[in-house]
Amino acid sequence: MGLIDDDLKQIKNIYWQTFSIGKKARAQLKNQKPVVLWFTGLSASGKTTIANLLEEYLHARDRHTFLLDGDNIRHGLNKDLSFTDPDRVENIRRIAEISKLMVEAGLIVIASFISPFYTDRRMARGLMEEGEFIEIYINASIELCASRDPKGLYKKAQNGQIKNFTGIDSGYDIPKRPEIIIDSSNTEAIDAANQILLYLESNNYLDVLDDQI
Amino acid sequence: MGLIDDDLKQIKNIYWQTFSIGKKARAQLKNQKPVVLWFTGLSASGKTTIANLLEEYLHARDRHTFLLDGDNIRHGLNKDLSFTDPDRVENIRRIAEISKLMVEAGLIVIASFISPFYTDRRMARGLMEEGEFIEIYINASIELCASRDPKGLYKKAQNGQIKNFTGIDSGYDIPKRPEIIIDSSNTEAIDAANQILLYLESNNYLDVLDDQI
Repeated sequence: MGLIDDDLKQIKNIYWQTFSIGKKARAQLKNQKPVVLWFTGLSASGKTTIANLLEEYLHARDRHTFLLDGDNIRHGLNKDLSFTDPDRVENIRRIAEISKLMVEAGLIVIASFISPFYTDRRMARGLMEEGEFIEIYINASIELCASRDPKGLYKKAQNGQIKNFTGIDSGYDIPKRPEIIIDSSNTEAIDAANQILLYLESNNYLDVLDDQI
Repeated sequence: MGLIDDDLKQIKNIYWQTFSIGKKARAQLKNQKPVVLWFTGLSASGKTTIANLLEEYLHARDRHTFLLDGDNIRHGLNKDLSFTDPDRVENIRRIAEISKLMVEAGLIVIASFISPFYTDRRMARGLMEEGEFIEIYINASIELCASRDPKGLYKKAQNGQIKNFTGIDSGYDIPKRPEIIIDSSNTEAIDAANQILLYLESNNYLDVLDDQI
């Protein structure tokens, strides 16, 4: 414990003036520019598969990420919310606020939600600073998604067993100017993840210099 | 971009089998055991001062932290909540759920909230796994806190201008078995932060070995 005591003495001298540890300090520690990668698209369009693969790639490069999706949000923070329109809006609002906190914490946040409404996605973007929100539209036709139907949800929606299902009896606003578009009908998940990784590389989100944060 | 392409080819081979990046993988990347340091105590007891100082110490050691407090929660995620009893419960529930997500993300989370009710703190602890919740009781008498009164809140509460103020017309349940107690009436903030840092060191939250995560 001797080393600790010496360290502490030194820290006492250096850090007597209080200051807050902020986004820039954390990002420098991690050599990455914090950002939200916001995946939007129909159910079964391939969002989660691509998002998971991208997270693995980034982790293999020692980058610090976190994936927010229905599994860890709907069963925890947002378990009090239903799928009515006002609750969907509140659902996305809270996800956007958590994303903002995690960007503040220095992370690369991967948010994977249908997020069908333009106004909600604009609200989420509006919470972040310039360059901190990358909208990734996973484009696949409703016919293709309904034919994949891995969880049998489209079938239930078509039979009226599920209400307010995006693409069946609830709308999806196609993103107008997303930073990245992936046509998942003719792109393998691995190529889609690579496409996003290259976007991050070429736009200096990884291996940042001090003055780029 | 040549290096990137080579890297990607290698990653393609290694990571073809999908797997999720979890708490353990992130913690190994950061050489720390993710944990919530939950500060509880009266208004003006010194929670935020000590929490800020502790975060600086941990950051100076390249540890990855995030501080949750009223400033970044009440103005964002929880801006729809008031100070009525049900809203206070919901306030702490959401903070606990965010803390859980951030622990999942591998962080050392510093949560600094009055959190006056035993049941709420027990709920927060119950969300985490064994050893992931460290309750830190910042103990200062109501008389001392009211005499400090840096924001003039006690005076307003005593005049009836603020309702439901902890220690005046709303209760505070003293923690029964907190992991750490700090008597802020006779402890400097810098010594309090050091006491917590030594607790983390001696309980292996920092410099962890693979089999301790």
